[in-house]
Amino acid sequence: MSKTAIPYKIYLEENEMPKAWYNLRADMKNKPAPLLNPGTGQPLTAAELEPIFCKELVAQELDNDTAFIEIPEKIRDFYKMYRPSPLVRAYCLEEKLKTPAKIYYKFEGNNTSGSHKLNSAIAQAFYAKEQGLKGVTTETGAGQWGTALSMACAYLDLDCKVYMVKVSYEQKPFRREVMRTYGASVVPSPSDTTQVGRQILAQHPGTTGSLGCAISEAVEVAASNPGYRYVLGSVLNQVLLHQSVIGLEAKAAMDKYNIKPDMIIGCAGGGSNLGGLIAPFMGQKLKGEADYQIVAVEPASCPSFTRGKFAYDFCDTGRICPLAKMYTLGSDFIPSANHAGGLRFHGMSSILSQLYHDGYMDAVSVEQTEVFEAAEQFARVEGILPAPESSHAIKVAMDEAIKCRETGEEKTILFGLTGTGYFDLVAYEKFHNGEMFDEIPTDEQIAASLAKLPDIQG
Amino acid sequence: MSKTAIPYKIYLEENEMPKAWYNLRADMKNKPAPLLNPGTGQPLTAAELEPIFCKELVAQELDNDTAFIEIPEKIRDFYKMYRPSPLVRAYCLEEKLKTPAKIYYKFEGNNTSGSHKLNSAIAQAFYAKEQGLKGVTTETGAGQWGTALSMACAYLDLDCKVYMVKVSYEQKPFRREVMRTYGASVVPSPSDTTQVGRQILAQHPGTTGSLGCAISEAVEVAASNPGYRYVLGSVLNQVLLHQSVIGLEAKAAMDKYNIKPDMIIGCAGGGSNLGGLIAPFMGQKLKGEADYQIVAVEPASCPSFTRGKFAYDFCDTGRICPLAKMYTLGSDFIPSANHAGGLRFHGMSSILSQLYHDGYMDAVSVEQTEVFEAAEQFARVEGILPAPESSHAIKVAMDEAIKCRETGEEKTILFGLTGTGYFDLVAYEKFHNGEMFDEIPTDEQIAASLAKLPDIQG
Repeated sequence: MSKTAIPYKIYLEENEMPKAWYNLRADMKNKPAPLLNPGTGQPLTAAELEPIFCKELVAQELDNDTAFIEIPEKIRDFYKMYRPSPLVRAYCLEEKLKTPAKIYYKFEGNNTSGSHKLNSAIAQAFYAKEQGLKGVTTETGAGQWGTALSMACAYLDLDCKVYMVKVSYEQKPFRREVMRTYGASVVPSPSDTTQVGRQILAQHPGTTGSLGCAISEAVEVAASNPGYRYVLGSVLNQVLLHQSVIGLEAKAAMDKYNIKPDMIIGCAGGGSNLGGLIAPFMGQKLKGEADYQIVAVEPASCPSFTRGKFAYDFCDTGRICPLAKMYTLGSDFIPSANHAGGLRFHGMSSILSQLYHDGYMDAVSVEQTEVFEAAEQFARVEGILPAPESSHAIKVAMDEAIKCRETGEEKTILFGLTGTGYFDLVAYEKFHNGEMFDEIPTDEQIAASLAKLPDIQG
Repeated sequence: MSKTAIPYKIYLEENEMPKAWYNLRADMKNKPAPLLNPGTGQPLTAAELEPIFCKELVAQELDNDTAFIEIPEKIRDFYKMYRPSPLVRAYCLEEKLKTPAKIYYKFEGNNTSGSHKLNSAIAQAFYAKEQGLKGVTTETGAGQWGTALSMACAYLDLDCKVYMVKVSYEQKPFRREVMRTYGASVVPSPSDTTQVGRQILAQHPGTTGSLGCAISEAVEVAASNPGYRYVLGSVLNQVLLHQSVIGLEAKAAMDKYNIKPDMIIGCAGGGSNLGGLIAPFMGQKLKGEADYQIVAVEPASCPSFTRGKFAYDFCDTGRICPLAKMYTLGSDFIPSANHAGGLRFHGMSSILSQLYHDGYMDAVSVEQTEVFEAAEQFARVEGILPAPESSHAIKVAMDEAIKCRETGEEKTILFGLTGTGYFDLVAYEKFHNGEMFDEIPTDEQIAASLAKLPDIQG
């Protein structure tokens, strides 16, 4: 296909944007395992979840059957401010790599949160507002989710309390300041503002924090303040549901130009971007309508899929959250502080875990120095300075395109470019100064943290 | 018009993007005054300019007659990576302000340089490459131009040396790091790497620098290194020519939906964004085909149009550059260090100066605290965190929309949202902490610097 046939960027028209989210669970034969009450070992009921999560979001969390869930108009209007995101044909990268492969990426970074996180943030804030709540609490790692939630809350006039993983809080003062611009309060985690935070600080005085700790703190605050609920930026079924807007748009744009990807690649921390990107494609695959190779890319320093265990585990370090069945490194696992950015979660979405377990997708892990090399090469030819998280997918897409150069295969590759690296320049600076290295957990470290998995195994 | 009639964002199709830049000078009865040789007082010839500037750019600089200049294909391909930029209907801002006005903005921030500057950077780098040069030198204030040029040079494999105004270098370490990611070398100005820098440091030891100083240094380096030329991100005729892509796209998008703006607003530092945005509209106005109210907005701390003099002046503090006829505060004028971001240039584009002098446009100045108030309000409803520079235009557009609320007038307002504020969070932080204030030059200060205008007055 010539350059004139496929534009550099495909934008859907406003009336082509999705009107409903796609709930992949409806088409899974093996449904993701339910969340369990850690006390009883029984599946959590809506009544048990509603003190923590908004009512409508609980309904979405538990709904394994409805394939399409309408996107409320107010959310669709908000989406129109920064969506559709472009599906980009990476002509310049293809040329640079001298590959016959055709590379596409769905770019979610063209909004102030700098990532795809805004897609679920506005949905969760909307349902909190509908329920008449005062505000929401959450955790943030790299800061993208916290920024996204701050923006959504500012728009809807909701209070927003963010627990930010300490290492990111210190490395990313500007992320913090953006959240404040949008009116959020931001606390470095672990902190002494919660019981669980004080416990973690007592046990690990020098800790730089983890998403698991921050989740525990945010949940505690939501549970103990009337008019507040907890919201989460990844992992949960509801989040993957909202993020399906990425894949639905990508597929609509590809269908418009008769493009069929052979391979779909996404980075995976908790799984929200990957789950959203692949949703409609995976749906076809599950129904036998089409086949795609689907690849999750995770950091070698936090390799849940590739070195974790498929088991029930706590979602948080403080062990106050429900148990989810997922690929996990153990809720005690904290990746090296040297690891830049997000993708630091010890577990993985239950939906993706089940699909991976059932053989519907592959997973690979990559080291961060090679990820930054790919990121810099990408920036120089495609213009966009990518987030370290997104660059995990770039790395694997580039490797695949190089293989195609060798084999002559004209593979069509689609990857998710989840966000921009404008707030990750401390990490880029380390990379430029040769101060970045890889710290990969040993088998013993992983075994030690897996040894502490809860006894309840569903 | 209903929301369904006009989408939130209008994107042109790739084949609707401009194929030629529009040279406004061709339709001006009173042409902008020529650049003068400060030694002889005579108009500079191409032969005199070519040791400093690329040959093809000199031709564009001096061309007052050709209305449309073809955009080379390689530049159009680069444009396709980040353009067309969206023309956004500010539905949420309108709702917030309860105004009957219809507000549109042309958003140039969706690229890693974070601003419109990339439009001219790629053009200038392209012509330098075509001429077989090794590299280019330049200055940067807020860092947007330097980032844009670094990106363009990385793409074309050209060396790039950037002199960055010291106050920005210190306030914006991340901007510096982005430039390094794209392979540029970045020096704080004034520096001891040039003769003129050493002189300025000797005269003003504590200076935080100015665009004027940085220009002098970059020009000196280009003139004394074979294979290098100097490039400039604003002020020059050639830059306004390249930036006409903004206005051409905006007009094409408006024409597509039968929208006619009543008022067009842009921030003005050296004039490149404003000159580009208004180009095709001003062309119609000059030919009597349509009428528009056109407003330049400048900072009260650097008010070239509103308090300067229309006269020949040096473009740089070191007085080594040609003389340009323009509204100027005197080449010695250095705005308060407290003033955030760009728009710090003492002069103004000769084209815009002539048009303002001839009554084709208006100018107002605004204070920075009220600009940041408008910026924050805008961010909270429209989602985008705006650059301080762009927020000058936001402030005036919002004021006008509020007036419409009072009068009931359904005015259509178009303003230029030139970029994002992701690298301006030190300034936002100051604003939030109440540490930002306005420092407006006294009449005596301006008179003192105007007293040093060169004797040659064309």
